[in-house]
Amino acid sequence: MKVKPLADRVMVKLEKGEEKTAGGIIIPDTAQEKTQTGVVVEVGDDKDVIKVKSGQKVMYDKYAGTQVKIDGAEFLILKMSDIIAVIE
Amino acid sequence: MKVKPLADRVMVKLEKGEEKTAGGIIIPDTAQEKTQTGVVVEVGDDKDVIKVKSGQKVMYDKYAGTQVKIDGAEFLILKMSDIIAVIE
Amino acid sequence: MKVKPLADRVMVKLEKGEEKTAGGIIIPDTAQEKTQTGVVVEVGDDKDVIKVKSGQKVMYDKYAGTQVKIDGAEFLILKMSDIIAVIE
Amino acid sequence: MKVKPLADRVMVKLEKGEEKTAGGIIIPDTAQEKTQTGVVVEVGDDKDVIKVKSGQKVMYDKYAGTQVKIDGAEFLILKMSDIIAVIE
Amino acid sequence: MKVKPLADRVMVKLEKGEEKTAGGIIIPDTAQEKTQTGVVVEVGDDKDVIKVKSGQKVMYDKYAGTQVKIDGAEFLILKMSDIIAVIE
Amino acid sequence: MKVKPLADRVMVKLEKGEEKTAGGIIIPDTAQEKTQTGVVVEVGDDKDVIKVKSGQKVMYDKYAGTQVKIDGAEFLILKMSDIIAVIE
Amino acid sequence: MKVKPLADRVMVKLEKGEEKTAGGIIIPDTAQEKTQTGVVVEVGDDKDVIKVKSGQKVMYDKYAGTQVKIDGAEFLILKMSDIIAVIE
Repeated sequence: MKVKPLADRVMVKLEKGEEKTAGGIIIPDTAQEKTQTGVVVEVGDDKDVIKVKSGQKVMYDKYAGTQVKIDGAEFLILKMSDIIAVIE
Repeated sequence: MKVKPLADRVMVKLEKGEEKTAGGIIIPDTAQEKTQTGVVVEVGDDKDVIKVKSGQKVMYDKYAGTQVKIDGAEFLILKMSDIIAVIE
Repeated sequence: MKVKPLADRVMVKLEKGEEKTAGGIIIPDTAQEKTQTGVVVEVGDDKDVIKVKSGQKVMYDKYAGTQVKIDGAEFLILKMSDIIAVIE
Repeated sequence: MKVKPLADRVMVKLEKGEEKTAGGIIIPDTAQEKTQTGVVVEVGDDKDVIKVKSGQKVMYDKYAGTQVKIDGAEFLILKMSDIIAVIE
Repeated sequence: MKVKPLADRVMVKLEKGEEKTAGGIIIPDTAQEKTQTGVVVEVGDDKDVIKVKSGQKVMYDKYAGTQVKIDGAEFLILKMSDIIAVIE
Repeated sequence: MKVKPLADRVMVKLEKGEEKTAGGIIIPDTAQEKTQTGVVVEVGDDKDVIKVKSGQKVMYDKYAGTQVKIDGAEFLILKMSDIIAVIE
Repeated sequence: MKVKPLADRVMVKLEKGEEKTAGGIIIPDTAQEKTQTGVVVEVGDDKDVIKVKSGQKVMYDKYAGTQVKIDGAEFLILKMSDIIAVIE
């Protein structure tokens, strides 16, 4: 079973409990209880709009997207425009 | 008797009481009392916009669409843009 | 005397007291005291937009349109975009 | 002295106290204390948009337009898009 | 010293205390304490949009524009789209 | 050190305490504690949009722009569309 | 590890405790506890829109962007349209 995002949407696997990542990135203030980074696992087929690919770690706008849980893991289905940066 | 959605709309049959589906998909948080997945039963005729077809299981935005009951079954008439993913 | 809707508008005759129609369609929840189906009686002349015709039974968005009473019968003047489905 | 509406605007003379017209049209509910029909007396010069002419009786959206009184008679200056139907 | 409105803006000199004009035009209801007519004194240079000229008496939307006082006289700088009619 | 506004923005030096200018222009009502005129000191490079130049005295919409202080003088960075008139 | 802003976004390193810069620029009023200037460190790849480059000191709209902390330093990921001026 697979969830395939439509059009300009991207599915991201959330990182749990990594308030401070290995590289030292911390999401501050009101966002602190919510991670704002994740790894892309699926992308929609609107190739003109989607500029990220599976495996990339991304940062996204707070409160964006729809949460989904699959087998205990948390995912977020986001619009491409809600993804603000790639973490390399 | 048949309900035929117009233009870019899609009619979806809701899944009852399947908070946790066979594949383990759970819709979390405030959405928990509302399923956010269903099976497409009818589509409008705006072929450029509609990217799903009858029989596909889809996930949609919370609070989207208009509810309809036919012979005890619950349906939702949604705009294509409210459908965020296909579940394969 | 005739009321002729303009442009992309459609005039619909409301169905009274048919909370549950012959075919079993029920409009649930908060909408229950308001029927959301009616029969098209007049259409505007914007032929590119209007996709319904006189005699068709349609379903429309809640709170849409302007109510009119003629000789005791209730009508609604709706924009085509407020009509979500045709009931066949 | 004459008031000439600009662009896509239409000037309508309101009908006083005709809650129920000869043909039986009644404007129901919260609108009842406000007539929603009038006779076109002047139109703007945006010919592509304006689809009514002087002398036609029209129905318009509630709360639309700007009220004007000339010699005791009440008028409304409306945008063409606020006029929803012609009464023939 | 001169105030020259920019682009699609029009400068109008307000009429003081003329709640009822010579021709009998009265602005009713909540607008009564505010005149809604004035005489055009300057126009911006967006010739495609501006359809009034200096010396014309115009009627405008309530609450539109920015008030200016020059030597005791009151003026209003309005967008052309806020001017609804010319009074001839 | 120089602040250079970007795109369609204009930087204006505010006039202090000149509630009533030499030519008698007064900004009335709720705006009285805020001057609404200033002198253009820098403009962005969107030449199609910017219709004012350094040295011109301009009038702008209330509450528009971002305030900046440089060496005790007050400036405002405005969008061109917030500038409503040139004072000659 | 590097954060690379997407599309029309720009990453800016905030200046700490420099309420009054060397050149005397002060951000006044309600913004005083928040610096509104920073140095560009990374830009997205939408070359038509992005008009600033790494190393430039910029001023941006209050409350714009998403805050990020990397190794104790504060950054902001902004849309180009939120950057109002370059400080030279």
